[in-house]
Amino acid sequence: MGLTMIQKILAKAAGTSSPEPGEIVEARIDTAMIHDATGAPVVAAFREIGRSRVWDPDRVLILFDHSIPAPTESAAWLQKILREFATEQGIQNLDIKAGVCHQVMPEEGWVYPGAVVVGTDSHTCTHGAFGAFGTGIGSTEMAAVFVTGKLWFRVPESIKIIVDGSFPRGVFAKDLILYLCGKLTAEGASYKSIEFAGPAVEKMSISERMTLCNMAIEMGAKAGMIEPNEVVLEFVRSRARHPFEVIKADPDAYYSETVAVDVSDLEPQVACPTQVDNVKPLREVAGLLINQAFLGSCTNGRLDDLHAAAKVLEGRKVHPHVRLLVVPASAQVYRRAMEDGTLRILSEAGAVICNPGCGPCFGGHQGLMAEGERCIASSNRNFKGRMGKGSEVYLASPASVAAAAVVGQIVDPREFFA
Amino acid sequence: MGLTMIQKILAKAAGTSSPEPGEIVEARIDTAMIHDATGAPVVAAFREIGRSRVWDPDRVLILFDHSIPAPTESAAWLQKILREFATEQGIQNLDIKAGVCHQVMPEEGWVYPGAVVVGTDSHTCTHGAFGAFGTGIGSTEMAAVFVTGKLWFRVPESIKIIVDGSFPRGVFAKDLILYLCGKLTAEGASYKSIEFAGPAVEKMSISERMTLCNMAIEMGAKAGMIEPNEVVLEFVRSRARHPFEVIKADPDAYYSETVAVDVSDLEPQVACPTQVDNVKPLREVAGLLINQAFLGSCTNGRLDDLHAAAKVLEGRKVHPHVRLLVVPASAQVYRRAMEDGTLRILSEAGAVICNPGCGPCFGGHQGLMAEGERCIASSNRNFKGRMGKGSEVYLASPASVAAAAVVGQIVDPREFFA
Repeated sequence: MGLTMIQKILAKAAGTSSPEPGEIVEARIDTAMIHDATGAPVVAAFREIGRSRVWDPDRVLILFDHSIPAPTESAAWLQKILREFATEQGIQNLDIKAGVCHQVMPEEGWVYPGAVVVGTDSHTCTHGAFGAFGTGIGSTEMAAVFVTGKLWFRVPESIKIIVDGSFPRGVFAKDLILYLCGKLTAEGASYKSIEFAGPAVEKMSISERMTLCNMAIEMGAKAGMIEPNEVVLEFVRSRARHPFEVIKADPDAYYSETVAVDVSDLEPQVACPTQVDNVKPLREVAGLLINQAFLGSCTNGRLDDLHAAAKVLEGRKVHPHVRLLVVPASAQVYRRAMEDGTLRILSEAGAVICNPGCGPCFGGHQGLMAEGERCIASSNRNFKGRMGKGSEVYLASPASVAAAAVVGQIVDPREFFA
Repeated sequence: MGLTMIQKILAKAAGTSSPEPGEIVEARIDTAMIHDATGAPVVAAFREIGRSRVWDPDRVLILFDHSIPAPTESAAWLQKILREFATEQGIQNLDIKAGVCHQVMPEEGWVYPGAVVVGTDSHTCTHGAFGAFGTGIGSTEMAAVFVTGKLWFRVPESIKIIVDGSFPRGVFAKDLILYLCGKLTAEGASYKSIEFAGPAVEKMSISERMTLCNMAIEMGAKAGMIEPNEVVLEFVRSRARHPFEVIKADPDAYYSETVAVDVSDLEPQVACPTQVDNVKPLREVAGLLINQAFLGSCTNGRLDDLHAAAKVLEGRKVHPHVRLLVVPASAQVYRRAMEDGTLRILSEAGAVICNPGCGPCFGGHQGLMAEGERCIASSNRNFKGRMGKGSEVYLASPASVAAAAVVGQIVDPREFFA
């Protein structure tokens, strides 16, 4: 029996031959990332262990994205702790100017095929889009990684999701992953690795791949992974900080479950409050009034996401009762969207363009809502009160977010792509 | 004896002939503005008075600038109250997409020569740059204005500041007003109206005039005013929401004090913690390390301010230990700076470009500092703990802010303008 992607990556990282699902292995870490929301406890735990230096400062990085610029004195204080730690350890810290960690890490070459990438953020699974094993870990685990450069993992079983067909106009990778979250449920892939494959995935851009893998955690998965194609490899080759090897699943690998989807008939989806797997066809909630629309996040804050929104918003105006928040995922995305005129279109339509970062996704700042208000968001979570007590979040594609911003209510975006 | 600008404006607004300083007059209000930080108590007081409608919905406006997008649930709640009030009263509310109230008001035609402009914000004196009488008032006073359209004023005495000479390269209107704050002190113009005049003022752009008038309040003044020139009139003519009349001081007007300044020898100034009148030549504090640099605010967040900073930052990088926050004063400024390439220069240098608004000026969000940190800012106040407990704010020109951001310490900006 052959091995899945994650089995092979862990085998290599642990120096073993063919680890079985359920087996415990100790894997070398390629990249360890902490950010402003979770980093300070890592530093505290690291100091408690008593080591003076991290195992390899070239494999550790600190990114600020959750609360930037600092909205409170305590956020400023947490950032100060990390700045001082970065200077002391010779670790790279891109401070508040770079953007969302999961966008900046590949841009800056910290992610590449076959790598084991850990971060103190649950959406570290995003990096499976590059053929890496990325996963979120806790702060004290990360302190141990800082000391040893290794971490134990229970080898996950894998689920294969085979996607066929072509996306209809106005339907996107985000609709697919929302549909899958609904189908598999929030626990459907608990501690498993999801491999996305099939013709529709092979054709996907880097950004679309990231959208899929990003939300693997919303089905409980330990990882979401896609075999890198030439587009991914070209992106990675000029950026990777370390040599890498493309690792693919064996043709006869064992999957605990195989799911087949055809996107040709997929329609726009929406995850309704207050669970990511509470997914419905968008038309079922069309007409719901919204107060806020959020375009951004590690799920959908990239250039093609802004393009999709701009296609809807060009020559139109955001509804007067709606505030549309645009938060490009990174400074690179921001500058490219500025250069190609996308930000102009969005701004002229009445969007508020914020500095790159996580924006209002997690309800820390930059777009809290009052009780009874409703947001349609391109982000990845809609838990109770996430953007403010008593407010609601509906998750959808960037096109659906933009369409709702124009109309003032949830509306089928396909009419804007006719 | 002739009359000063403010005497003549109040005479017209009160329907009296020649009000003497010290006299109480009841003036008709041309524009009444409330914003997200101070508006909710106005609404509460208005409701307590028991009237159902504001006196004239075409003369009342609501702007959101202090805490946008809402950084907390309570900020979101305060905004919701104002949105509902605006809808109920048919009042214009540009929501979170417009920018700093004092920038947006003239852009949108709410300010014009001879107008009486009141706002629940102390820097409403900015509007003297357009030959209006602008002044900040309290929330309950504003509720009375909402009901009656009038407000009583004690007619202020006036101080005339005559500015001669030409600014040396790298020295700006902000350096002049800081110098004047130091010279006159924070109480030197208490309840007086300052008229800025003289050849150097006559040559000033709208933006420079706004910088001067904006900080009149920092000397205790009730108003800061400048006779409008043709540039101002051209700006106003196409925008003004109501007919207006240019009101100039009589040649034989009485001034309680006349101050003469020649800017030809002026050097860059800085207001040191923790008073705006603690002003020194910048060279006296050169070398002080900074952690944050803030370019923005109603004082200096306009296009020419961003241009001055871009001149310093083009082809250079923000010092790695500094975060540079750029907050364009309005969406119009933002788009113009995007179109002419200024934002690209600033972003490539490593600046964090935030959505238009007040930014970190008042310490509400978007750039709080930790204890022991230091900011150089183009804004107007440096009071104790304003951007975070135990942190320091130094006030300077946009050029000085940008120069410090590059070098990592307070530095004479003139070397960048040689």
